[in-house]
This record gives sequence, structure tokens and C-alpha cells, in this order.
Amino acid sequence: MIFELTVLGNGSATPTYFRHPSAHVLNVHDHLFLIDCGEGTQIQFYRHRVKFHRINHIFITHLHGDHFLGLVGLLSTLHLQGRTVGLNIFGPADLIRIIDIQLELSDTILRYPVQFYPVDPHNSKKLLVTDQVEVTSIPLNHRVPCTGFLFKESSRERNLISSKIKEYKIPYASFDSLKKGDDFHSPDSTIIPNALLTLDPPKQRSYAYCSDTCYDESIIPLIKGVDILYHESTFLDELRERAKETYHSTAKQAGVIASKANVKKLIIGHFSARYKSLDPFLEEARLTFNNVYIAMEGEKYQTD
Amino acid sequence: MIFELTVLGNGSATPTYFRHPSAHVLNVHDHLFLIDCGEGTQIQFYRHRVKFHRINHIFITHLHGDHFLGLVGLLSTLHLQGRTVGLNIFGPADLIRIIDIQLELSDTILRYPVQFYPVDPHNSKKLLVTDQVEVTSIPLNHRVPCTGFLFKESSRERNLISSKIKEYKIPYASFDSLKKGDDFHSPDSTIIPNALLTLDPPKQRSYAYCSDTCYDESIIPLIKGVDILYHESTFLDELRERAKETYHSTAKQAGVIASKANVKKLIIGHFSARYKSLDPFLEEARLTFNNVYIAMEGEKYQTD
Repeated sequence: MIFELTVLGNGSATPTYFRHPSAHVLNVHDHLFLIDCGEGTQIQFYRHRVKFHRINHIFITHLHGDHFLGLVGLLSTLHLQGRTVGLNIFGPADLIRIIDIQLELSDTILRYPVQFYPVDPHNSKKLLVTDQVEVTSIPLNHRVPCTGFLFKESSRERNLISSKIKEYKIPYASFDSLKKGDDFHSPDSTIIPNALLTLDPPKQRSYAYCSDTCYDESIIPLIKGVDILYHESTFLDELRERAKETYHSTAKQAGVIASKANVKKLIIGHFSARYKSLDPFLEEARLTFNNVYIAMEGEKYQTD
Repeated sequence: MIFELTVLGNGSATPTYFRHPSAHVLNVHDHLFLIDCGEGTQIQFYRHRVKFHRINHIFITHLHGDHFLGLVGLLSTLHLQGRTVGLNIFGPADLIRIIDIQLELSDTILRYPVQFYPVDPHNSKKLLVTDQVEVTSIPLNHRVPCTGFLFKESSRERNLISSKIKEYKIPYASFDSLKKGDDFHSPDSTIIPNALLTLDPPKQRSYAYCSDTCYDESIIPLIKGVDILYHESTFLDELRERAKETYHSTAKQAGVIASKANVKKLIIGHFSARYKSLDPFLEEARLTFNNVYIAMEGEKYQTD
């Protein structure tokens, strides 16, 4: 069962030829979740072969252009390509005003329903529960209201032990019930405990997306132990004062957060256009957290 | 003196990996004029080495996303990069609402002044006169109010005939006056006619941008004899009914307009994403107008 992140943009406020603004796609059991949608995200879909028609949920962190300016174009493309399936958008309350005015002025009535869910930027809340995933908001500390998102795979089924299934002659019709954790009641009324017949399900995997934010330890309880943490690192530590002023983080700070939250893997991105090489970001973050990766456009990331 | 068009996008409403939405840059004597600004225009600036900081005038034809969705990101980038020089934007009256709401909600106060000029979509008017160029609006016939733009090089100076300048011992201080067409008054009160000392200036060059529009002959008087006409051709003639329904044109129709308006050169673009090859567009337009070119992204076009 797939649980895979694709990074489509690792740049920050000003795009460069090599770096696009923020957009991540999380694939959970072949359901696609788009997180942020900077300008040019559609082109990145084509370039990196993302089947974007399968996106049913879009999450926008905040209203700085590099995180949402690709959204209205994407809505329009889905409309023109004949989408009829509903689309769910989670983001700052005012986002819907930006969408609505542009659809209205281009005389566009979308062919598919859009359900908009305003996100409270001050309190962590459960936003979505599906068969695949549970999504919780992570209040971030930025210049404008900003929210990260924690994706946790929904609990998975227990694994049948095939040798035991044969030994106890368990009928096929009982498999679903066993996978859910029920004991087996045989026709002669004996009970075979579930623990004899199944193994624990695979661990639920998780991904936390934290962009944009200054260094703020208050997110640690919310991201504790996640399999993959994406934490912005707009600057290197030599510009930590600039980071503080602009409510951004340095690579070193991202590493400290990852370490304190005891996450399994850290991905850093949202690099300022002033940096040509990204190697120093990796070196710096590694000083405080070992298992760190640069968010590379087009790359896919799994849990360890 | 340069008069050169750079095409940055030749696609239509839905971008593809190979085609970006509309954006043209006209360079007149090293002053850059941006015409339409689809999503991703900034990236195209980088890719095709357009010195976009030198753009002081932006013209937006209409409020379909593929013609303006890159604008707010561009304004933001210019702001973040420290621009202080004023920027002039010409476009549909409601465009300023779209700009303002996004700047307001991202808590951005631009560091440079923006002067917005609403364009009347129903009547052709002179919009701008600078030392380099005169810009006139061209009302187009589209599903929403839409305006093309005619750029005409400002009248250029007469050329001094150096042999005559020497022969009549014309002092340097009189050169400017001669270039403007004045006769030369010598200290002994003889008058040397300008025609003896100068040649006619080079012809004023012109460029007309007509996107998006259905086939409509009413534009012909406005674009008569232009050096370069860009006319949209979203479809091939086999889809002329679809073109009519959507207020777009076919390659054949673009050729007919070019021919009837007796223009010097035709460039066609705004191709529907359904077409993989663009050769049929060229072949079709050539049936009705000979000197036609496909708008290729990154290509530069001059007058003949």
C-alpha cells in the first residue's frame, strides 16, 4: 500500500529557473492529496507525471502567493477537462474570496462541486478522516496566519497468518472479520482468539508538512515521532536574524525541531532564491539531525 | 533601434508540458512592454533571458486565467527584489480588484507605485504615448470583454547625410534641429533646406496583438498594414464550429484577417492543448496568407 510524497517545488517567494514555488503531492493508497499549489504547479504535474485528475483534496497553508497562485488555474483546467467529481479545498477562510472573484470575473461556473473548508489557524483540529488518511492542522508561526498539515494513515487491517488459517480451517467468509481483529467463532462454538490467527497490522505511516514558519517549538507535540517531517528552511543559519524577521527558519533550526520531535526523517525545502547550491543546507541540518534530505523537485520520498 | 517581439507562451486555456499560457514581450528601443501574463510567465522570463525588471508597462487583454494568472506573482517578485520604479498596468477595469484582494490578503504593500489604467473594451482608444511607442486598444470579440493592443513606434528622427553636413559645414549644435526636420539657418542668413541635408527617417514599425477573438472583420481598419500581426488561432478549420461557439479563431481565419488587413507578417498562436503538432496550423494559414509564422516559445520576431 503506497504512502509516498512527491515534491513539485522547493523554492520560496520568488521563483527561479530551477526552483518552483511550493507544491507537494502525497499519495496514500493511490489517493492523491495536494498540499500548497504555487504558480506553475500544473506544469510540474505534467513534467513529473502526476495524475492530477485523481486529486480530490487540496490543502493550502496560507495566503502568500508562492503557496496558492497556481490554484485558480488548476480549478479552471479541471473544469475545462470535464471534471465532474467534487473537490475539497482546505485553507485560510479568505482563500475562497480569491477563488470566487476570479471565477466570477472570468465568467466561469465550475462543472464540478467545490467544497471549501476554512481552517482555523490558531488551534490544531482534525480536518478530515477518510478510509486512507486522517488530516490534522498544525498552527504555524508566520507573518500571516499559516497552518501546516499532519497526514496520518488510517489504521490498517491485521495480517492473516496463512499457516494458521489452514490449520484451523477458517472459512473465507470470516477473513474480513479477522482482519478487523475479531476472534473466530467456529460452528461448534469454540472460540479461536484473533491473536492466534493474525499478526499486527503494519504501522500507520505519517507525514507532517510545516511551511512557512519561524523556529517554534510549540509544533513539537503535534509532529512527535512522525515518519516524515517536511520543515521549511528558507535560509542558512548565517541569516538567522533575517529568518526571524521574516518568520522563516534556517536549516539548522529545522534540524533542531526534527531532533526534538524525534521524527524518523526530515525533508527541508522552501529555499531562498539567493542560494545557488543546496549542499550547505544539507550539511547544516545534519549538524543537528542525521536523517535529512533536500526536497528535490520531481523526487519521491517514502518512509524508512 | 530595436523593435522585437519575444513569445513566451503559445498555449491556450490549459497549459501542457510544452506550451505555456499567453505572454508576449515587445522590445521597442530597449523599453520592454509585457502583453498578457499567463501563469508561469516569470519562469519563462528566466528560461528565455528576458530582463523583466525593465518592464514598465503591462497590458492585459481580458480576465480569462491564461492571460493574467501570472501577474500577481510577478508584482510580488518585483516587490521582493526591491523595485522602486513605478509600473503601469492597462487592462479590464475589474483586474485591479483581483490584484488588490491578493495583495491585501497576503499583507503586501508594494514598494513601488502601480498606476492602473482601465481599458474600455468597446471603443478603440489611444492608451499610451511615450518617446518610443504609441499604444492603441483594439476591441476584440470574445466570450468576456477583451481588448487587443496596437503598438506603433513613435516617429523617428531624420537621418543626417554626412557628406552634405561636411559640405555645408553644419555645426554640431544644429544636428538635433535638423533631425527634427528644421531647415538650417546659417550665420549669413542663407537658408539651407532640410531636404538637402537629411533623408527621411526609417519607417515607424508596428505590432498588433489580437488574442482572444472570434473571426471578426471589424478589427481590420485598426490593424491595416501593420508590420507584424499576432492573431490567435486556437483551432484548425475542421473545428470552426467549436471556434465560433467559444469565440476563438481558426488558423485559416487568422490568415484571412491578415490578408484582408494587408499586414506584412502574421504570427499565429494560442493553440488548443488538443493539438500535438503545430505544422497543420502553418499549412492552413498559408492557404490564405503567405508570410505566416508559428508563435514559438522563446523565439524572437522582427519586422521584415
